[in-house]
Amino acid sequence: MTASRITSGAAARTTVYEIAVEFGDCDPAGIVFFPNFLRWIDSGSRHFFVACGVPPWRETEATHGIIGTPIVDVQAKFLKPATYGDRLSVESRVSEWRNRSFVMRHVVRRGDEVLVEATEVRIFAKRVPGERARLEAVAVPSFVRDACDEAL
Amino acid sequence: MTASRITSGAAARTTVYEIAVEFGDCDPAGIVFFPNFLRWIDSGSRHFFVACGVPPWRETEATHGIIGTPIVDVQAKFLKPATYGDRLSVESRVSEWRNRSFVMRHVVRRGDEVLVEATEVRIFAKRVPGERARLEAVAVPSFVRDACDEAL
Amino acid sequence: MTASRITSGAAARTTVYEIAVEFGDCDPAGIVFFPNFLRWIDSGSRHFFVACGVPPWRETEATHGIIGTPIVDVQAKFLKPATYGDRLSVESRVSEWRNRSFVMRHVVRRGDEVLVEATEVRIFAKRVPGERARLEAVAVPSFVRDACDEAL
Amino acid sequence: MTASRITSGAAARTTVYEIAVEFGDCDPAGIVFFPNFLRWIDSGSRHFFVACGVPPWRETEATHGIIGTPIVDVQAKFLKPATYGDRLSVESRVSEWRNRSFVMRHVVRRGDEVLVEATEVRIFAKRVPGERARLEAVAVPSFVRDACDEAL
Repeated sequence: MTASRITSGAAARTTVYEIAVEFGDCDPAGIVFFPNFLRWIDSGSRHFFVACGVPPWRETEATHGIIGTPIVDVQAKFLKPATYGDRLSVESRVSEWRNRSFVMRHVVRRGDEVLVEATEVRIFAKRVPGERARLEAVAVPSFVRDACDEAL
Repeated sequence: MTASRITSGAAARTTVYEIAVEFGDCDPAGIVFFPNFLRWIDSGSRHFFVACGVPPWRETEATHGIIGTPIVDVQAKFLKPATYGDRLSVESRVSEWRNRSFVMRHVVRRGDEVLVEATEVRIFAKRVPGERARLEAVAVPSFVRDACDEAL
Repeated sequence: MTASRITSGAAARTTVYEIAVEFGDCDPAGIVFFPNFLRWIDSGSRHFFVACGVPPWRETEATHGIIGTPIVDVQAKFLKPATYGDRLSVESRVSEWRNRSFVMRHVVRRGDEVLVEATEVRIFAKRVPGERARLEAVAVPSFVRDACDEAL
Repeated sequence: MTASRITSGAAARTTVYEIAVEFGDCDPAGIVFFPNFLRWIDSGSRHFFVACGVPPWRETEATHGIIGTPIVDVQAKFLKPATYGDRLSVESRVSEWRNRSFVMRHVVRRGDEVLVEATEVRIFAKRVPGERARLEAVAVPSFVRDACDEAL
């Protein structure tokens, strides 16, 4: 199984996460306070793995030491604002598996309108024992890759 | 006064915003949930203008229709995690004034360690009358440019 | 139409708001950071009025000056924690209409388990003109009472 | 050492936590979205223990299994709103030590004005091994009581 095949396969799989925008998600300008879009994109990222059958991070920490997929880089474009009462969807996919990281792409929509586009680089991480708030990247775990491949 | 002089002047001015990381800012991995870094960077951005003497957005809305500086693009690198009990600083500056937008650069540090670097593109915006949650970019207001220049 | 009839009618109407608990809603103990429960209860409160047909607050502000229903008192019991991956429901109802305030009761459940019970006192509020961040309670608007009654 | 002496002693100790209210803490009505007050009160609670010399919860979990002080009950009155640019203080104290819980009182002020008053009941908690998101109350740890007593 070549990396490119997996990559293209993974690229084909997308998940969609639904959001109801609330009053408290909006700022005094009456629009979504932008860090909330990142919060929802993070949810979209986690739901991708859940949909692939990857166990919750509390289980992967117990079984493999993997505490989750911390972000190392994000690039986001905010094309249109949203407000409370809006129903949004976050479409998420892995666009590239690298050796010790992976790239996710997210599109936030309200109906057909694209509101936000984001590209994230994330790692799979373990704690560094005895160190406070120190994490280290590990190779993308095979049980994750297998789950994501099977789910295609 | 040429744009380039203003730009280089603006680039020279930086403000620093202090953060106390709290328990509730952290996720089950024990580290700051990354959208909170964007929240703090947003605070750094607002504090830059406050430090320059720009009135709060609630006043600029009343006087000029300007509701604030919505973000249109962000790029952030997360180099090291933080946890509760950490004291962080967000250093913010305008690196470029454009015609209808501007670029801000932020560096989040814990002491001398750089944790996050971010570049934002923001606009000054007015509401589109009669439209729900619609904003339009306006030219960077001269009272803002004047305030930021005088503050150099 | 007597107050008691309206009250008992209102008491009979309940709305249910669904929540997907996310990783970022949880703290380093792995459980929901409790202010998020209050955030969800606030959503439950707003959804009650939406379900009754009351327009969004941005419209009531334009038509009647009503900016929403600020809270003046909350009492909440946290019986069991929740974690990410949980699906919760917030059941909300008005238990009492008073002259210038009203009481809402909320129950947050995971399936049949009750996690949180809360009682709020809220007001309908207008801005005090010319004052910064000053609100004043107004009598419960008749268009709200009518909407909630018709919706029974 | 009697409980009442400790109680009155504990009641005498207060800590003060400072808050800068940000744009993103406020809602479309332009005032602080109320769950943020609970977030700040939670910070005030943690700072009380930090000021007494109690180690961070990540350390007490490693040494004693104590993951923190989950809330079991809160009652809060919201007397006046706040907005961005406000500087607030949260004054916190333990008003009562019980056998397996304790009561904290918090007052949020802007200068001399009282904005919010809250009373919380909290427990010290350990995880229930092998159970997902299950916690159990333990007796208030003696190292905490000692730290809080010495700090008087």
